[in-house]
Amino acid sequence: MSRKVPVAIVGANGYSGEELCAILARHPAVSIAAVTSRQHAGKPAGGVLPRLSGVGDFSQLLFTEPAIDSLLGCGAEFFFLALPHGLAAEYAVPLWEAGKRVIDLSADFRLRDAGIYREFYGEEHPAPQLLSEAVYGLPELHRGSIRAAKLVGSAGCYPTSILLPLVPLIKAGLIDVSDIAVASASGVSGAGRKAETALLFGECNESLRAYGLPKHRHLSEIEQELSLAASSRVMISFTPHLAPMTRGIHTTIFTRLAAGVSPESILPALQMAYANEPFVRVSTNLPDTKHVTGTNFCDISARFDARTGRLILLSAEDNLVKGAAGQAVQNFNLMAGLDETAGLL
Amino acid sequence: MSRKVPVAIVGANGYSGEELCAILARHPAVSIAAVTSRQHAGKPAGGVLPRLSGVGDFSQLLFTEPAIDSLLGCGAEFFFLALPHGLAAEYAVPLWEAGKRVIDLSADFRLRDAGIYREFYGEEHPAPQLLSEAVYGLPELHRGSIRAAKLVGSAGCYPTSILLPLVPLIKAGLIDVSDIAVASASGVSGAGRKAETALLFGECNESLRAYGLPKHRHLSEIEQELSLAASSRVMISFTPHLAPMTRGIHTTIFTRLAAGVSPESILPALQMAYANEPFVRVSTNLPDTKHVTGTNFCDISARFDARTGRLILLSAEDNLVKGAAGQAVQNFNLMAGLDETAGLL
Amino acid sequence: MSRKVPVAIVGANGYSGEELCAILARHPAVSIAAVTSRQHAGKPAGGVLPRLSGVGDFSQLLFTEPAIDSLLGCGAEFFFLALPHGLAAEYAVPLWEAGKRVIDLSADFRLRDAGIYREFYGEEHPAPQLLSEAVYGLPELHRGSIRAAKLVGSAGCYPTSILLPLVPLIKAGLIDVSDIAVASASGVSGAGRKAETALLFGECNESLRAYGLPKHRHLSEIEQELSLAASSRVMISFTPHLAPMTRGIHTTIFTRLAAGVSPESILPALQMAYANEPFVRVSTNLPDTKHVTGTNFCDISARFDARTGRLILLSAEDNLVKGAAGQAVQNFNLMAGLDETAGLL
Amino acid sequence: MSRKVPVAIVGANGYSGEELCAILARHPAVSIAAVTSRQHAGKPAGGVLPRLSGVGDFSQLLFTEPAIDSLLGCGAEFFFLALPHGLAAEYAVPLWEAGKRVIDLSADFRLRDAGIYREFYGEEHPAPQLLSEAVYGLPELHRGSIRAAKLVGSAGCYPTSILLPLVPLIKAGLIDVSDIAVASASGVSGAGRKAETALLFGECNESLRAYGLPKHRHLSEIEQELSLAASSRVMISFTPHLAPMTRGIHTTIFTRLAAGVSPESILPALQMAYANEPFVRVSTNLPDTKHVTGTNFCDISARFDARTGRLILLSAEDNLVKGAAGQAVQNFNLMAGLDETAGLL
Repeated sequence: MSRKVPVAIVGANGYSGEELCAILARHPAVSIAAVTSRQHAGKPAGGVLPRLSGVGDFSQLLFTEPAIDSLLGCGAEFFFLALPHGLAAEYAVPLWEAGKRVIDLSADFRLRDAGIYREFYGEEHPAPQLLSEAVYGLPELHRGSIRAAKLVGSAGCYPTSILLPLVPLIKAGLIDVSDIAVASASGVSGAGRKAETALLFGECNESLRAYGLPKHRHLSEIEQELSLAASSRVMISFTPHLAPMTRGIHTTIFTRLAAGVSPESILPALQMAYANEPFVRVSTNLPDTKHVTGTNFCDISARFDARTGRLILLSAEDNLVKGAAGQAVQNFNLMAGLDETAGLL
Repeated sequence: MSRKVPVAIVGANGYSGEELCAILARHPAVSIAAVTSRQHAGKPAGGVLPRLSGVGDFSQLLFTEPAIDSLLGCGAEFFFLALPHGLAAEYAVPLWEAGKRVIDLSADFRLRDAGIYREFYGEEHPAPQLLSEAVYGLPELHRGSIRAAKLVGSAGCYPTSILLPLVPLIKAGLIDVSDIAVASASGVSGAGRKAETALLFGECNESLRAYGLPKHRHLSEIEQELSLAASSRVMISFTPHLAPMTRGIHTTIFTRLAAGVSPESILPALQMAYANEPFVRVSTNLPDTKHVTGTNFCDISARFDARTGRLILLSAEDNLVKGAAGQAVQNFNLMAGLDETAGLL
Repeated sequence: MSRKVPVAIVGANGYSGEELCAILARHPAVSIAAVTSRQHAGKPAGGVLPRLSGVGDFSQLLFTEPAIDSLLGCGAEFFFLALPHGLAAEYAVPLWEAGKRVIDLSADFRLRDAGIYREFYGEEHPAPQLLSEAVYGLPELHRGSIRAAKLVGSAGCYPTSILLPLVPLIKAGLIDVSDIAVASASGVSGAGRKAETALLFGECNESLRAYGLPKHRHLSEIEQELSLAASSRVMISFTPHLAPMTRGIHTTIFTRLAAGVSPESILPALQMAYANEPFVRVSTNLPDTKHVTGTNFCDISARFDARTGRLILLSAEDNLVKGAAGQAVQNFNLMAGLDETAGLL
Repeated sequence: MSRKVPVAIVGANGYSGEELCAILARHPAVSIAAVTSRQHAGKPAGGVLPRLSGVGDFSQLLFTEPAIDSLLGCGAEFFFLALPHGLAAEYAVPLWEAGKRVIDLSADFRLRDAGIYREFYGEEHPAPQLLSEAVYGLPELHRGSIRAAKLVGSAGCYPTSILLPLVPLIKAGLIDVSDIAVASASGVSGAGRKAETALLFGECNESLRAYGLPKHRHLSEIEQELSLAASSRVMISFTPHLAPMTRGIHTTIFTRLAAGVSPESILPALQMAYANEPFVRVSTNLPDTKHVTGTNFCDISARFDARTGRLILLSAEDNLVKGAAGQAVQNFNLMAGLDETAGLL
């Protein structure tokens, strides 16, 4: 193994941040220059995150304060931001200005339009001048731009599970983009490591419930990318649910074939689109979140309901891996000129 | 407490059967004349079903063989059949001929059309001559007929969760019946107490997956009842999922308003329809399976997605109670002239 | 049903309080005069606790402020306190002085010795003058005193699961009280409905861990009652664990037979001790929490390890029912002169 | 990466076998020459085990019949046996005779004494002549012998979690070996991928129960190794429990200090014993199974109960990794002269 790329992880204490640490600690071409936690600065990172104790750089790393000056001086060339939206931009701006390359796991740099950000996030975008610089970090859609990008807004968990089955079919003109309704279910880690009553074990176990409808924030990036693929404005219905599991997103999409399209053409179109993708598995088997948990895979399948003429697309991914930390590392691998699968297979 | 109605439970060892025993053992107006289990005949029922040990009649009851002769002689006036479809009819026929009243929890007497049964269950109906006698056992739709019925095919779990939100809106002409797509998720007990690898804890925990699409058997009774409400043939898409919980069904329905209907009219229409129903709760709050677990309630809510013009209906119930055993007892209460809520609130 | 006893529930919003509401709402001889919640005063109780919407008095009840004056005037004869320790005493004192009868679910009135309270709870007892008035609320041990008591400190969850198997054997001189070590595992609801990171679904699911050793607070009441049974000072080791389930406590006790005692005498001794107890089931089958969930039963069994000479006692209960709310209602039934099982079977 | 060691996996379809495949597919120094499944011979391994689809050699591997001739000819130098006890020996004997090196995950070669095997497994040992050749596969205890071994009986899941905390303390004479009682809890995957009613989701979820006491089979290897460490016959009490989680074992050990030993010496003794072990983490923090899930770590801690003089040792591991497949690979790494942590960190 040759030179290791020095990276920093800003905000390591949430679920995505911890997963990012777990992946990067085992990454063969990475050294961790800094890992920050406001709450735990000064403490051994392996003590705060016991899963990581004794794993790679986490045998010695201490958490540091997320001060921008010390981050700029820590030697890292790439910066992963695992912070709440809004706060992420506060770090992205000075890092970008200092010429660093940034992979942001928050929603701050996923949208191209500050007005859409305002509409869905309820506040002004904190750094609209960078929106035209940022690349939407879903490698299967934007691999080329990601390679060259200085700032990547790594794609969100629900969006990834919805875009991967839909985009190739939309690009090929196989489905009716005016009729798309999505029901997704996520494990509870998707809500973050927040001390809220609604996320207690006693509230989430033996519970299944919809939430955040009809206008979940992730709709903004989903529709941005669907519209891009369709070269026309696409709007969909999206109903997320919370399921009693720690990890995993399952997505079920109801749509219809475009006029004249044969149902038999759908699965082959998906298989062809993803034939060379290392992390998308298209199969006749129905996806199951347990087959992707802990991996960077997104599994996809399709069924045609001949009785009603509906096409049903299904996908499964680990919300913390392909839906967050794994995707961020996949983006990083591309940006750093490494094997795209390094540390991820 | 006055006279107790003697009942028999045929097939008490599955999940629905056990739940039925649990409800009937505590029912103030019921005495249990017989409880059968081929596998456990002769054993104390409270030993085989430890939850029930020491509860009411289960302090002394022995399981008996499900022989029709001994059932006819056991003194029961009402017979609950908690058996696989096909087998249930083998008991229903002689019981019916002997003038007994039967509540069947299987699918055998839910359909009016033997051809539909053949299409969805893949075999000839075992007793087509009784189909015109049987009543579909969903009290909120067929209360009057159930009261007088000798044979009730108690409504299924998914169907109950789908019909209760839809039927009043269809009857009132408020929705477009040509555009209905349903995503439901069920706890694993819905698959029965069967020794199958796919139902092991290790396969179902931390797993969410669709199954049985696009033509799940329950579609047959769902569409029968929707068509009845609409006075026209209704076909829908239905995607069931298995969720990592023991009990509960959550249903999310995507549909559209009928022309000229205001979104504001939906929730009031549901509230009015169920104002006097003891077991349907309509609320602005989104349903959550944990709020209905162990109860005979079905919780319903609705949201309008103004961006796409879709109406989203949501419901939650306990698949083993309102979706099976509780519903059967509600039907029984009606048939026996008891308070409809006896033993259920 | 004749006269209903008016009761008040102070602090209904925690897990024990909600379970208490669920039991009392269905209790045939109770009317709920008041139910308090500081946080939710003025709101319909069935809206805050959706499980209870439409159930008995919860169809109309509003939460009220827990002000002592309004409680004294609400018409209740019995007061259930489901409050944190320390706070419970603040209510118990004026209620007791006003001649009301109180069932306290907290730890405030379980100990006879204010010094022990200080040692285990780290603060001065808030009302030491009432300790001699209060009765330890475990009906199987103190039924007579509970009947007459004005103030009952309802027994805790772990203590109930440990005392019920041990006390009859100690009283009969069958085991060596100098050698008792206990490993218990509790569902997460035992920790209360508190917004703490450690209780999140993502922290408790797929997790099993010990905590609170070696000196858990419940040891104080356990040893008080064991010493009473033994007529000598008994000290034990107790290791509680948190298990990934919502409800249930399982207890495994390692002890030894007293000199000359035959292993064959243990199970019969337990069976005889509990022959007439409605809520204790002694069996050769190993207890399983799922068989007691939602019930007021405590299941008990025993095994002798001939190789090492150890006796292993096992028990299971629902921590929120026999370990909290059910036990409180059992105590109430005794105090009110009702059938001890009313509302509980 | 230089030469890859060719290996075969016999019996890949159980939980341990699948986990072994997952680890070996990502092992940097291994090529998979054959993977067998009687049930699935001829099928793509990645289709039967969807988690592994697209991972390393599993992109192309087909399952083969477990015929000894074809195994001998498949080119593998090392053979992993993930088979039921008894059956494993049928493969181990001819492989051993052909000069192959074998890592057996079953219990067949863990015991040195065929009489003990008969006592605990209820049948004659199928290959007693090999018992003296086999090495007990717990690297922390027998690293040197494992390196040179041709046949390793990889240590069991419960035994690993019990031996790692106890053996260093016993060797150092710090604890009283006559007083050891153990309560362990395992995730359900420990029972294997067997279609048994007792292992269904509906039976294991929201359930905690003891089983297999007082004489679980694993006691035989536990006591063999404890006795070896103590140079005297050691017998312990062991109560395993089934907990509602897929993976993980948590062990709580009650014991006492040897005469004159200070409680303060225990944790340092453990830390010193494991200072250079890559997979044993000793900490003052209480172990939690979620911190070791998916890893080859065993976490250990200790508490002294000054009130009763008991020492409480605690450990956590992933039953399928350090308790089965990871341990097997750790043994393999030693036997093959590779870095002990290859593929495991």
